[in-house]
Amino acid sequence: MTSHGSEPALLDRAEATASVASLLNRYQDVRRRTISLCTPLVPEDYVVQSMPDASPTKWHLAHTSWFFETFVLNAACVDEATSKNYSFLFNSYYNAVGERTPRAERGLLSRPTVAEVYRYREAVDERMHALLDRGDEALLGRLAATIELGLNHEQQHQELIVTDLKSMFARNPLRPVYRENAPVESGTVPSLRWLSYPEGVCRIGHDGAGFAFDNEMPRHSVFVQPFELADRLVTNGEYLAFIQDGGYNQPQYWLSDGWNARATHHWTAPLYWEWTENDVWRVMTLAGLRELDPNEPVCHVSYYEADAYARWAGARLPSEAEWEVASEPIAIQGNFLEDERFHPRPLGATAQADTPLAQLFGDVWEWTRSPYTPYPGFAPAAGALGEYNGKFMCNQMVLRGGSCATPQSHIRRTYRNFFPPEARWQFSGLRLARDV
Amino acid sequence: MTSHGSEPALLDRAEATASVASLLNRYQDVRRRTISLCTPLVPEDYVVQSMPDASPTKWHLAHTSWFFETFVLNAACVDEATSKNYSFLFNSYYNAVGERTPRAERGLLSRPTVAEVYRYREAVDERMHALLDRGDEALLGRLAATIELGLNHEQQHQELIVTDLKSMFARNPLRPVYRENAPVESGTVPSLRWLSYPEGVCRIGHDGAGFAFDNEMPRHSVFVQPFELADRLVTNGEYLAFIQDGGYNQPQYWLSDGWNARATHHWTAPLYWEWTENDVWRVMTLAGLRELDPNEPVCHVSYYEADAYARWAGARLPSEAEWEVASEPIAIQGNFLEDERFHPRPLGATAQADTPLAQLFGDVWEWTRSPYTPYPGFAPAAGALGEYNGKFMCNQMVLRGGSCATPQSHIRRTYRNFFPPEARWQFSGLRLARDV
Amino acid sequence: MTSHGSEPALLDRAEATASVASLLNRYQDVRRRTISLCTPLVPEDYVVQSMPDASPTKWHLAHTSWFFETFVLNAACVDEATSKNYSFLFNSYYNAVGERTPRAERGLLSRPTVAEVYRYREAVDERMHALLDRGDEALLGRLAATIELGLNHEQQHQELIVTDLKSMFARNPLRPVYRENAPVESGTVPSLRWLSYPEGVCRIGHDGAGFAFDNEMPRHSVFVQPFELADRLVTNGEYLAFIQDGGYNQPQYWLSDGWNARATHHWTAPLYWEWTENDVWRVMTLAGLRELDPNEPVCHVSYYEADAYARWAGARLPSEAEWEVASEPIAIQGNFLEDERFHPRPLGATAQADTPLAQLFGDVWEWTRSPYTPYPGFAPAAGALGEYNGKFMCNQMVLRGGSCATPQSHIRRTYRNFFPPEARWQFSGLRLARDV
Amino acid sequence: MTSHGSEPALLDRAEATASVASLLNRYQDVRRRTISLCTPLVPEDYVVQSMPDASPTKWHLAHTSWFFETFVLNAACVDEATSKNYSFLFNSYYNAVGERTPRAERGLLSRPTVAEVYRYREAVDERMHALLDRGDEALLGRLAATIELGLNHEQQHQELIVTDLKSMFARNPLRPVYRENAPVESGTVPSLRWLSYPEGVCRIGHDGAGFAFDNEMPRHSVFVQPFELADRLVTNGEYLAFIQDGGYNQPQYWLSDGWNARATHHWTAPLYWEWTENDVWRVMTLAGLRELDPNEPVCHVSYYEADAYARWAGARLPSEAEWEVASEPIAIQGNFLEDERFHPRPLGATAQADTPLAQLFGDVWEWTRSPYTPYPGFAPAAGALGEYNGKFMCNQMVLRGGSCATPQSHIRRTYRNFFPPEARWQFSGLRLARDV
Repeated sequence: MTSHGSEPALLDRAEATASVASLLNRYQDVRRRTISLCTPLVPEDYVVQSMPDASPTKWHLAHTSWFFETFVLNAACVDEATSKNYSFLFNSYYNAVGERTPRAERGLLSRPTVAEVYRYREAVDERMHALLDRGDEALLGRLAATIELGLNHEQQHQELIVTDLKSMFARNPLRPVYRENAPVESGTVPSLRWLSYPEGVCRIGHDGAGFAFDNEMPRHSVFVQPFELADRLVTNGEYLAFIQDGGYNQPQYWLSDGWNARATHHWTAPLYWEWTENDVWRVMTLAGLRELDPNEPVCHVSYYEADAYARWAGARLPSEAEWEVASEPIAIQGNFLEDERFHPRPLGATAQADTPLAQLFGDVWEWTRSPYTPYPGFAPAAGALGEYNGKFMCNQMVLRGGSCATPQSHIRRTYRNFFPPEARWQFSGLRLARDV
Repeated sequence: MTSHGSEPALLDRAEATASVASLLNRYQDVRRRTISLCTPLVPEDYVVQSMPDASPTKWHLAHTSWFFETFVLNAACVDEATSKNYSFLFNSYYNAVGERTPRAERGLLSRPTVAEVYRYREAVDERMHALLDRGDEALLGRLAATIELGLNHEQQHQELIVTDLKSMFARNPLRPVYRENAPVESGTVPSLRWLSYPEGVCRIGHDGAGFAFDNEMPRHSVFVQPFELADRLVTNGEYLAFIQDGGYNQPQYWLSDGWNARATHHWTAPLYWEWTENDVWRVMTLAGLRELDPNEPVCHVSYYEADAYARWAGARLPSEAEWEVASEPIAIQGNFLEDERFHPRPLGATAQADTPLAQLFGDVWEWTRSPYTPYPGFAPAAGALGEYNGKFMCNQMVLRGGSCATPQSHIRRTYRNFFPPEARWQFSGLRLARDV
Repeated sequence: MTSHGSEPALLDRAEATASVASLLNRYQDVRRRTISLCTPLVPEDYVVQSMPDASPTKWHLAHTSWFFETFVLNAACVDEATSKNYSFLFNSYYNAVGERTPRAERGLLSRPTVAEVYRYREAVDERMHALLDRGDEALLGRLAATIELGLNHEQQHQELIVTDLKSMFARNPLRPVYRENAPVESGTVPSLRWLSYPEGVCRIGHDGAGFAFDNEMPRHSVFVQPFELADRLVTNGEYLAFIQDGGYNQPQYWLSDGWNARATHHWTAPLYWEWTENDVWRVMTLAGLRELDPNEPVCHVSYYEADAYARWAGARLPSEAEWEVASEPIAIQGNFLEDERFHPRPLGATAQADTPLAQLFGDVWEWTRSPYTPYPGFAPAAGALGEYNGKFMCNQMVLRGGSCATPQSHIRRTYRNFFPPEARWQFSGLRLARDV
Repeated sequence: MTSHGSEPALLDRAEATASVASLLNRYQDVRRRTISLCTPLVPEDYVVQSMPDASPTKWHLAHTSWFFETFVLNAACVDEATSKNYSFLFNSYYNAVGERTPRAERGLLSRPTVAEVYRYREAVDERMHALLDRGDEALLGRLAATIELGLNHEQQHQELIVTDLKSMFARNPLRPVYRENAPVESGTVPSLRWLSYPEGVCRIGHDGAGFAFDNEMPRHSVFVQPFELADRLVTNGEYLAFIQDGGYNQPQYWLSDGWNARATHHWTAPLYWEWTENDVWRVMTLAGLRELDPNEPVCHVSYYEADAYARWAGARLPSEAEWEVASEPIAIQGNFLEDERFHPRPLGATAQADTPLAQLFGDVWEWTRSPYTPYPGFAPAAGALGEYNGKFMCNQMVLRGGSCATPQSHIRRTYRNFFPPEARWQFSGLRLARDV
């Protein structure tokens, strides 16, 4: 969602069903979760930007606070801005809110310090608490949707903190460990089975009950052809067979742009795989370097690689409509941020092994074959928050289901994540589909 | 279709309904048309490549012949290849057929000379004539689909010859004229009216009767929401109002990638518009520089510009399904390559002024909001010709309806052209749509 | 000296005249000076790399220690290496010593932490102290030249710490201040006078007494034509007149490569000059933003700008031979690192006002018109230290005299600093010369 | 001289010693020679620009004529300009004369046609003949120096026509042949001997008698240390030994910038060498592909390669002063453009074998270790011709002696050619020198 040059699509219309009390609780929960993700860090870790797509942790901490300051506190006119300069420093892409630091230069800022950023967060929190405590129902009724949006926005940045730290540590020859003593689970993976779905007019998209981003709306009809869906994710072992079969050197499996991206970036395996001297694949994880587990879901592949693998396997990726239709009976359970594994888990290690459609939520985002486009009838919200509702709806592909870095309370069946087809630093994997 | 780094999608399954005689006639017609497009050229004009997306005319002439040699004559085993080297020089992107000249370096080849390329064409024509004259029904039955494909492929390159020459002449300060004495037609354009279409399950795609590219198949059901479609194209005058309203400087109208493309390429108007000293917009055409006619359809805009204009106008671009559904009752008439205008025509100048949905075919390709993706059930053909059927189905947008550089005999209601969203050198314009 | 992609040229032959005691004292002085430069920093400040030419402070601290570890301690075989990984991380460009972090990626390393780097320094210092305390005259006799070299190397990095911090703070919109309460001195500058020097065979280069880099040797004869040299540096006020006369927009003043560099980098004034809204030039300094003082020497100009200014002024830059010949009677005094101004000083503010040739040492490095080439008879030293003695002798220009960021104890009359002609982040200015 | 982005330095002060008659003869000779170089070409060959450094033949033909039109005919006010547009198209870099086609886009111009360019040449020639025939001594006295300059300028472009055609043909997989039936000469090369030269103050530079470019003046004193110079050029066989010894993979032989250029451009051998399947080195020449002759002088090496070879061989390149001093007793004879070999010749094949210092003139330009800088007292000429006299005196290295593509009547002992250190498409080789 908060992809290459992008930020979440925003909704001005969420229903203010939550009572003030629950909103305050939720606010505190989300904000604390962000802080807890930083526990293993030293000040130096907050500063670095490993690549233009990623941001320093410090920036994430400040930007999410800036969001509340700008769109809630300033809108509520509750006292004055904490810092005029921060508006420049921590705006991501809201043109209507003014100028900003170029995205690729976020790592050039040693100041404000980490301590100052924490103080900024605290100042925003105090003002937010005061606002939420005040009991001004009319005001809160007006602001609730934006606050809810701000919390969902912050949860997206929680995922980015994790993926951006992984990107940074992976580029460091010292191979720093983010999470010591992460459990290593294993388990054999059952052979893949295909589940069948009939053709027909289906309804997808969010129906408006509870929070959703505007890109999930309106709920609408689509005609879906009959299809089959794999009952689990593609594994490292299966992907390794593709590599060993020369998959990265055979153009017939690849989209033309993918073939070129492969050459430009010298891809020969998923991101974070390393071929070691003693002929073993090792994988950089947030718990450090580990030997490749063939039973884990394959992860950190681009859309191009997912698509090439599927073609090699005689299948294809599902459309987002197919995915959403199939997801309807499946409970939203799985390996999420709250589990603090920060790594996908082998199917055999999970309780899901006997679900008809396993690993649908959590573990890895699943690339779909659907370009990210507006749903029919999509309408942008008013004002700065809505300014860019559709502005990323080009040259990106939809991913579904959340990952091991996504908060469970953040995901939905209708949730549409999106990234450019060459992006690999998110926890992105795939599930196969095929025509009947 | 033969877009950025791309070539037409191919079909192995066209029906061999055409008798041998009609195939020979059609072969001669298409091949002669290509040559006639070169009448105004001097040898130097055949050599230049104005940019990586474009190719030298000489290359187009040779490549289309190479196609028949490689996929028809070599497949028929009729005597030996005309030149081993030409296989390297004039392959466009068929990996299965071997190595090739890098696309961006096609303009580095002074040899083979223009005369040699014409001799190559003649040699291929002689061998094709011999093949078609031989009356070997079994052989021709086997090859007819590929020959038909080769002719459609050549018609695509006819359009590219025109657009690539325009690109080359436009970069020359001498402003060379390709077509002297082109008629200047004018006429006032009636105000735009909206036509309404109901929701429902519709069928789109080619049904298999007669030739079509495989990307048009299979015919399948889609659910279309109710929509409205403008009864004519957007004009230069209307687009000028967008420019004068500061449209190129206001981010709220633009996709994020479009906003960046605009800055990178310094776009302030459509391609080939020039702001002259005496405060007049002039436009480079194949008949030389002309004053801007506000009544002509706007042309040479990117998808990003078309999309931004539509947003400014409070509308949007149609989907390809909407376009195809609306096109059903409309006859395929208009301003095509055969008319030798090589420029779009004002509506008032055409007989179409009283058609309910005017300018649907010819004049300019119409950008749709649909990314170029495979239709459900799309299956690649076998062998080298089918190797890349889907390989361009990423990062491109669909255009519909043909242009003033498209042969009328080449276009269909189901025809899917596609280009990257920043492409501007094709005759590309737009028609508005909106939700109900 | 430690320019773009470069490191100081090294000398293996320095005379071991210094007694062991004085070497230990000097070692401690130099190492302490480096640390004292870091007093104003928070941990975050040590991490950032503002551009590929600059390095993080943390890197400078570690690299200078790595130098002693690698070339002294390892050579002396005194116990084992502190860290195998550090050898990879903190090598700058010594191919013979193994692989290394790419220069442009030094800012991607959050680890080792600042505290770890300080511990590394301390560990190296302890081992060095032990070595120097041991009193092994034979061993020290063998190592003294390399130790002396390491100290000079560290002094070069002291200057780089200052210039690289300035580069980092200048890119931060918060305009952090490195040195609070820096004195603001002023004084009117006397009009420029020309000093004359006769033609003749002169001797330049270092004669071998005391330490020098090998690029200063051997001392040799050159034939110098008669010339005149300005008695002081060019000032901000004089340079401003060049700007106001349209100097940046008139090609006749510029070298062809300089004219292009100017356009590519959008130069309209020296680095760190800012044109503020109220029509005042301000200058970023290590004491924060200040109003431009016309009496200060102009600083942070590239060779191209210095050369263009000189041509505009009807003069030229001196050759390094001219500069060295003229410097002979002048005492090495001036505004150096030890003064902790970190900024050039107006001539009127100095005691030098009555020196015949003022500001020759300190304040700003003076660009010469001499490309950096080997002196006749230049011979590279043996081994890794000498591996690259001449490897930067191409595409760079010589600067002379030291700056306000150069330690006074580091500079010599024969000292040859060098940077590519487009470099601007060093304290580089100019003095005029002319033919007779 | 007419290097990367550059044009010859010009002189306004040549003595008008030549009588009018001899000037006309010389004008006709030089202009005819240019045309005769185009005899083997077809129109398509005139159009292509193989790389930004090279220009289309058509451009050379027009630009040299534009030079006479602009600086002689327009200055003489003899009737009006042939074409206003040509002034834009065929200006190379004279800012004072107006705007121009970007250098890298010279190959985008199919028009004016080759025939039109020849007509332009003829029109300029007619006007020049009329001027020279008119017998206006005062006018000719004023213009003689510029005419002489224009002829030398045209001779420089003769060399560029040859090198640029070679560059173009070498990129064509058909390997076109420029000169059929070129003689293949061979001969064994005697082992290298060193000639000794004493130290002292020497005079170099042009003394003003006859034509010279201003960069050769003024004649002045330099102090030269004692040195030794190889009695012949380095051969292909000797260079091959450097390659086979791993020279391209060992950083200790290379300048830092050279080592990077080698990696960026993937250099593993001189330009135009090709390693064929059957383990033989072949070389592209203007007579087509040939097997490598180990006895020929090595050619098409960059300064970086020449410098690396010399270091590997335990020697160095000579300075331009050393070269010029050594050249004094040597007659200007050798393998020049007029010989129409267009390829260097083995020493054994030449009559020079018994000259003390063989191959000093012709065959290949000899890289010196001297950066291209102004001589002491160098003064730019007035006006547009002198506008850029020194503007290329940065980032380039001096070459001496002329090549097989240089007209013999164009070269001098004092002639200073210059190219950036990475340039390879000129006929550039090397001769070794060493300190005593």
